[in-house]
Amino acid sequence: MNPTRVYLDWAAATPLLPAAYEAMVPYLSGNFGNPSAIHGEGQITRTAVEAARATVAAAVQVRPEYITWTSGGTEGNNLAIFGVIESLAQQGRTYESMTLITTKIEHPSVSEACSALSKRGVTVRYVQVNEVGKIDLEHLRTLLDKSVVLCTTALINSEIGTIQPARAIHKILHEAEIKHGSQIFLHLDAAQAPLWINCQFDALAADYVSLDAAKCCGPKGVGVLVRGRRTDLVPVVHGGGQEGGLRPGTENVAGIVGTAVAINQAQAGWKERSEAVALVRDQAIKHIQLELPQTLVNGAAGEDRVANNINISIPGLDAEFAAVVLDKHGFAVSTKSACSGAGGGASTVVLETTEDPVRAASTLRITLGPDTALDQLKSLTSVLKKHVDQMSQY
Amino acid sequence: MNPTRVYLDWAAATPLLPAAYEAMVPYLSGNFGNPSAIHGEGQITRTAVEAARATVAAAVQVRPEYITWTSGGTEGNNLAIFGVIESLAQQGRTYESMTLITTKIEHPSVSEACSALSKRGVTVRYVQVNEVGKIDLEHLRTLLDKSVVLCTTALINSEIGTIQPARAIHKILHEAEIKHGSQIFLHLDAAQAPLWINCQFDALAADYVSLDAAKCCGPKGVGVLVRGRRTDLVPVVHGGGQEGGLRPGTENVAGIVGTAVAINQAQAGWKERSEAVALVRDQAIKHIQLELPQTLVNGAAGEDRVANNINISIPGLDAEFAAVVLDKHGFAVSTKSACSGAGGGASTVVLETTEDPVRAASTLRITLGPDTALDQLKSLTSVLKKHVDQMSQY
Repeated sequence: MNPTRVYLDWAAATPLLPAAYEAMVPYLSGNFGNPSAIHGEGQITRTAVEAARATVAAAVQVRPEYITWTSGGTEGNNLAIFGVIESLAQQGRTYESMTLITTKIEHPSVSEACSALSKRGVTVRYVQVNEVGKIDLEHLRTLLDKSVVLCTTALINSEIGTIQPARAIHKILHEAEIKHGSQIFLHLDAAQAPLWINCQFDALAADYVSLDAAKCCGPKGVGVLVRGRRTDLVPVVHGGGQEGGLRPGTENVAGIVGTAVAINQAQAGWKERSEAVALVRDQAIKHIQLELPQTLVNGAAGEDRVANNINISIPGLDAEFAAVVLDKHGFAVSTKSACSGAGGGASTVVLETTEDPVRAASTLRITLGPDTALDQLKSLTSVLKKHVDQMSQY
Repeated sequence: MNPTRVYLDWAAATPLLPAAYEAMVPYLSGNFGNPSAIHGEGQITRTAVEAARATVAAAVQVRPEYITWTSGGTEGNNLAIFGVIESLAQQGRTYESMTLITTKIEHPSVSEACSALSKRGVTVRYVQVNEVGKIDLEHLRTLLDKSVVLCTTALINSEIGTIQPARAIHKILHEAEIKHGSQIFLHLDAAQAPLWINCQFDALAADYVSLDAAKCCGPKGVGVLVRGRRTDLVPVVHGGGQEGGLRPGTENVAGIVGTAVAINQAQAGWKERSEAVALVRDQAIKHIQLELPQTLVNGAAGEDRVANNINISIPGLDAEFAAVVLDKHGFAVSTKSACSGAGGGASTVVLETTEDPVRAASTLRITLGPDTALDQLKSLTSVLKKHVDQMSQY
C-alpha cells in the first residue's frame, strides 16, 4: 500500500497479516494435494486443514468439530439461516409454521437470506432497534411466540458499529423456549468482531456464529461458521462429504491455513487493541465535532460501539462526493457497507435507526485499524472541513 | 513437492502454476481493498477482478458479463442446477411440473444437487450410459417430453475420463425444444476439461459450463460459471450485489487473479498437451495390460477419453490397500474421485457402467500431468505387479 495513503475502511477489508501470508505460502507453492485424497500429498493438506481447525476452535473455545469452513461471511450467514430453517423443514415443519426474527439494519447477506425464506413461506418479524441501533429487548420479548425458531442479527453492525447485547438476547430467547417448550436458535453475524471483541463461543451465548477471515486480517474467500452443541443444519451447497457434508467442495487449503493464523492473532490481542483504538476513536469524534459542529454521530457510544468505528452524518453533504474528495487527498473511507453497493443510495441502517433521510444520505463510515493515529484523523478532518466549507459556498 | 514422488492424481488436485502464484502475490501482500469500495484501494482490486474476468472470457470466448466467479466447481454446479430450477419456480412453474435429466455417474456436486431438487418435487430422470460411460443418445431422445427443463452432466467424467458428446446432446435437446415449444437448458460440469480439451463456449454448445481453478493449475477455492445468452438464474447464496447479484460476498481477489492466469494458460496449450499426454497414456495402458493381463480398463478409448486419465480394475484387488502401498513407494494415485470419499466403498461410476461389483471394488485412478513420463508409469506398474503377486500368494 502507498505509505502516503491513510486507509480507514477496515470494516470493508483488512490487510492480510504477514504471518498469515507466510503460513499460506507452502500451500500455494508446493503442498497442493486434495485433502480428501488417500496419498501422502493429501495427508499433508488434510493435516494442515485440521490443524487450522484446531487453532480456530481454540481461539473461540469450541471443539474442532464445531468449526465449519465456508467461502466467507456471506456464505456462513446463509448456511446458518437457511440451514436451520431447512433442517426443521426436513424434520416436517412447514415453512408457514415457522417464524424468524431479525432487524431492519442487517447486512444484505442476512437480510436477503431472510427475504428468500419469506418467499418460501416463513414469517419474518423485525425486532425494533433504538436510535443507536440496539435491539429493543422488551419488543423482542413480545415477538416470541411458539412459532419462532430462529433469531439472527449482526453482533456488530457493519455500518454504525453498534454491538448487540448477545447474552441478554440469549436470555430472553431461552425464557421463551422454557415458556413455550420450543427451540429458538440464535445466529450472530460476527464478521466485524474478531479484532475487537471477545469471540469465545460461550461468551456470545449463540448457537451459530459466522466469521469472515477478510475482515480480521485473513485472506479473502474464507469464512468460519462456529456452531454449538444443539445444532442440526442442512447444507446450502450440495456435493461431497467435506466438512461433515455441511460444506462440500475441495477445501481452500492455503486460505484456511491463513485464516487460522489471522483469527488466532485477532483474538489473542482483541482487548489491548480495542482499548487503544477506542481512545483514538473517541478523541477523533470529539475533534470532528469541534471542527464541524453540525456533525451527527450515528450509532452508540462507549462500550456499546466497536472500538474502530466512526460513523458520522453531515446533513446536506453529498457523502459519496466527499468520499471521493477524501480519496483524492489520500484517505480511504466509505459511505456505508461495501456489500450494500458502493455507489448511490442512502444508508438504510442510518435511515432505520434515525428515521432521518437527510442524515441517512450524508453518512461517512471511517473505520480504524490498530495503528491508526489521531493525527491522521485530524488531517482527514481538516480536508473534510475544507470540502464542507467549499460546498457551502455554492 | 518431494522430487522422488510421482504425483498421479491430477484429476483430484493440480499444482498451482508459478505464473498464477506470481500474479496472486500483489493481492496477498499489498492490494487488499474491497473491490466494491469507492476509494483507490477498492478500484485497484476491482480492476484486477474485471481484468481477470476479461481474460477468462477471452479464453472461453464469451463476453465478460457471462463469467461468474464462484468458490469452486461444486458451487458452480449448484448455482447452475438450482439456479435454473429456482428461476423457473419464481416464474411460476411448479417443481412437480419440471423434469431434469442427468446420469447415474455424476460427481456428488451434481448428483446431490439433483437429489435435493427431487426432494422439492422435481422429477429426476436418468439417461442411460453405455459400458464406457457415454450417454445413450437414443435413450436421451426418448426422455425428452415437454416437462424437461434441464439436462446436467459432466463433460469429462472425473473417475473414468469419458468425454460426453456435448454437441450431439445439444442437438437432441434442441430438436425436442422445437418439437415441444419448450426450453431445455444444458449444463456441463467441465471441471476436468481446461487442461485437456477445447472449452470455447460455442464449441460446447451448452447454456452453462462450470470450471474449477484447482483442477487446472489455479488456486483452490475459486471456480467459474460460464453462461450463455438465454439464461436466467436465481442465486444459491443470498446477499450483496456482487457478480450481478448471482454470487454475493467479497470477491476472493487473489484467487480470481490466479484463476485467470491458470485457465488462460490451460486453454492456450490444451491441444499439444493433450496429444502428448494421450500417447503416454495409451502406451502405459498397453504396458499395464502386458504386465498384468487381468487388468480391465474402465472408460472409453482414444478420443472419447480425456488424455490424462487411466482407470483400471484388477479384479480381486483391494484397491485402497494398493493405493496405500503405491503411496509408500512414491506414487500418488487414487481409487476414485476425492469428493466421493477417499475412504471405503466401491466406485459407483464403474459399478453403473460395468454392472460388475468386483470390478467396481478394485479400481485405481491414475491421472497424469503434462510432464508425466512413461518410465514413471512403468515403475508404478512394476510396484503394482509385485503387490498383486504378493497378494495372490495369500
